[in-house]
Amino acid sequence: MNILIIGGGGVIGQKLAAKLAERGTLRGQPITKLTLADINDPTPVDASFEVQTTTCNIADPASVEQTVTAEADVIYLLAAIVSAHAEEDFDAGWQINMVGTLHVLERLRTLGSKPVLVFTSSMAVYGGEVPDPITDHTFLNPQGSYGAQKAVGELLINDYSRKGYIDGRGFRLPTISVRPGAPNRAASSFMSSILREPLNGQPANCPVEDDFLHYYLSPRKCVENLIKGAELRAEDLGQNRCMIMPGKMWSVRQLIDAMTAVAGPEPAERITWDAQPDIQAIVKGWRFDLRADKALSLGLEADETFEDNIRYYLEDDKPAA
Amino acid sequence: MNILIIGGGGVIGQKLAAKLAERGTLRGQPITKLTLADINDPTPVDASFEVQTTTCNIADPASVEQTVTAEADVIYLLAAIVSAHAEEDFDAGWQINMVGTLHVLERLRTLGSKPVLVFTSSMAVYGGEVPDPITDHTFLNPQGSYGAQKAVGELLINDYSRKGYIDGRGFRLPTISVRPGAPNRAASSFMSSILREPLNGQPANCPVEDDFLHYYLSPRKCVENLIKGAELRAEDLGQNRCMIMPGKMWSVRQLIDAMTAVAGPEPAERITWDAQPDIQAIVKGWRFDLRADKALSLGLEADETFEDNIRYYLEDDKPAA
Repeated sequence: MNILIIGGGGVIGQKLAAKLAERGTLRGQPITKLTLADINDPTPVDASFEVQTTTCNIADPASVEQTVTAEADVIYLLAAIVSAHAEEDFDAGWQINMVGTLHVLERLRTLGSKPVLVFTSSMAVYGGEVPDPITDHTFLNPQGSYGAQKAVGELLINDYSRKGYIDGRGFRLPTISVRPGAPNRAASSFMSSILREPLNGQPANCPVEDDFLHYYLSPRKCVENLIKGAELRAEDLGQNRCMIMPGKMWSVRQLIDAMTAVAGPEPAERITWDAQPDIQAIVKGWRFDLRADKALSLGLEADETFEDNIRYYLEDDKPAA
Repeated sequence: MNILIIGGGGVIGQKLAAKLAERGTLRGQPITKLTLADINDPTPVDASFEVQTTTCNIADPASVEQTVTAEADVIYLLAAIVSAHAEEDFDAGWQINMVGTLHVLERLRTLGSKPVLVFTSSMAVYGGEVPDPITDHTFLNPQGSYGAQKAVGELLINDYSRKGYIDGRGFRLPTISVRPGAPNRAASSFMSSILREPLNGQPANCPVEDDFLHYYLSPRKCVENLIKGAELRAEDLGQNRCMIMPGKMWSVRQLIDAMTAVAGPEPAERITWDAQPDIQAIVKGWRFDLRADKALSLGLEADETFEDNIRYYLEDDKPAA
């Protein structure tokens, strides 16, 4: 089993690589090689099989041609310009998130290698005038460029799969929290930083009110779901290859209470509450009452409680003091 | 009012041009110039204002740059590779229907001219596992490349409009019948030819059974709706610029009965009934129980009865004997 992770330098890409190294198998077969590709050369992982790293800019077809070869049996396409970045840099967003996805798919069509391709979409594909709750088959009505680009990606994944050029499957990711590492340019960045920084002994600002509702998943469960996602049988996917990845809806207050329950009262005292209208303008358009029926029926899972998310962060990611 | 019709050589483009020439105004202002652009140089129309024709291949950015200028106040983007053609030539379909649309939009973003842009989408964006009836906000789940490309076009029109680069509006066209001229490579071509050819004294084959249901609109009403579509106020369009253009659902039997009611029994006797599985495979995936609530509330209209469609063909299009 030869695996390529495009976006292998990101938080999820790195955790997925580590998990694959730990398992040693995918789709019931031993992993023989793992390639991590990203815009900057990714950090390799320790594994019993060969691990290669490479730089790849999916907006450049020549770069895609070098990275994507017929040897890959399973490809994870995780690379993307994130939400606030895509909103700010319209051109980069469309070029990387849409045209870049098209380059990868066109390369695979030319190769004729028909790999399993796992695509990460986003709950940002939902928005505007559609009724709650949001289901797998709710009208995609993105109110931001990032969501629009991901919705286009889903249409591409479906059509290339229908034609047999790939065996694609796409998952609309909940917001990942607690996400380790530094804040990024996603408008959702605060949904981890208000927990991560206080747990690390640092201050953090919350730009929304504490009744702000959103739909979350831990990085640990996300990686487990991405592995299950690659292992699903094509015939179980029906007439649309994309679905909501299971998560759970929580308020900011519930996130903070879970942190307090697990780690005591001090972290919550490190949070400031300065409203940020630019962030609110994006995140308040996102939907939070989501039902991941299809993925749940196929065996993907959400976290049990948000206290689990806090514990996973402490176990997997908190920097040593 | 300077108007550009991309796809101005097609059936709808030509009829739209003739109607604009007859009206002399659009959006309450006199038309000063009309440009018809198409892959082959379009036939000009007689008008009291300047009419120019030009060739344009939207898959070629240099060609788009020549044709699309800052002078256009209203642009109709009708150009497309049709359904069976897009299914057969995967590459041409995506290059023209998606990348071509992107070229036009990118040109307008660069120009900064913010025109009204009317985009023709299709009911082929619907399909698969979604319940009837189909509404404006039903999940777009195309089961063919043409529908997927049109669905991407809608996402682009919405995002470029949201950012203020264009004032876009998109209409999911019913199948146009009775469409004049020669059969084309649309899988829906028979939905006109089983009426048009018999009315012209020629034989025609019906590749589906007579209980086949579909959603139709006459060319005359389609053009009227495209004119109203350009005249809608942006603030009435809500959080999605695309909607179903009103049509009505009829069976093949009802189409033929309407023809008989208007033109007597002879035309129906010229129809043969050889099933065509390749055509059926495409058209049976299309949805027919559609509700165009948004467009109807904004003043767009369907035909009253299919007998009207037959009469419009005889009045507007039937070749002189």
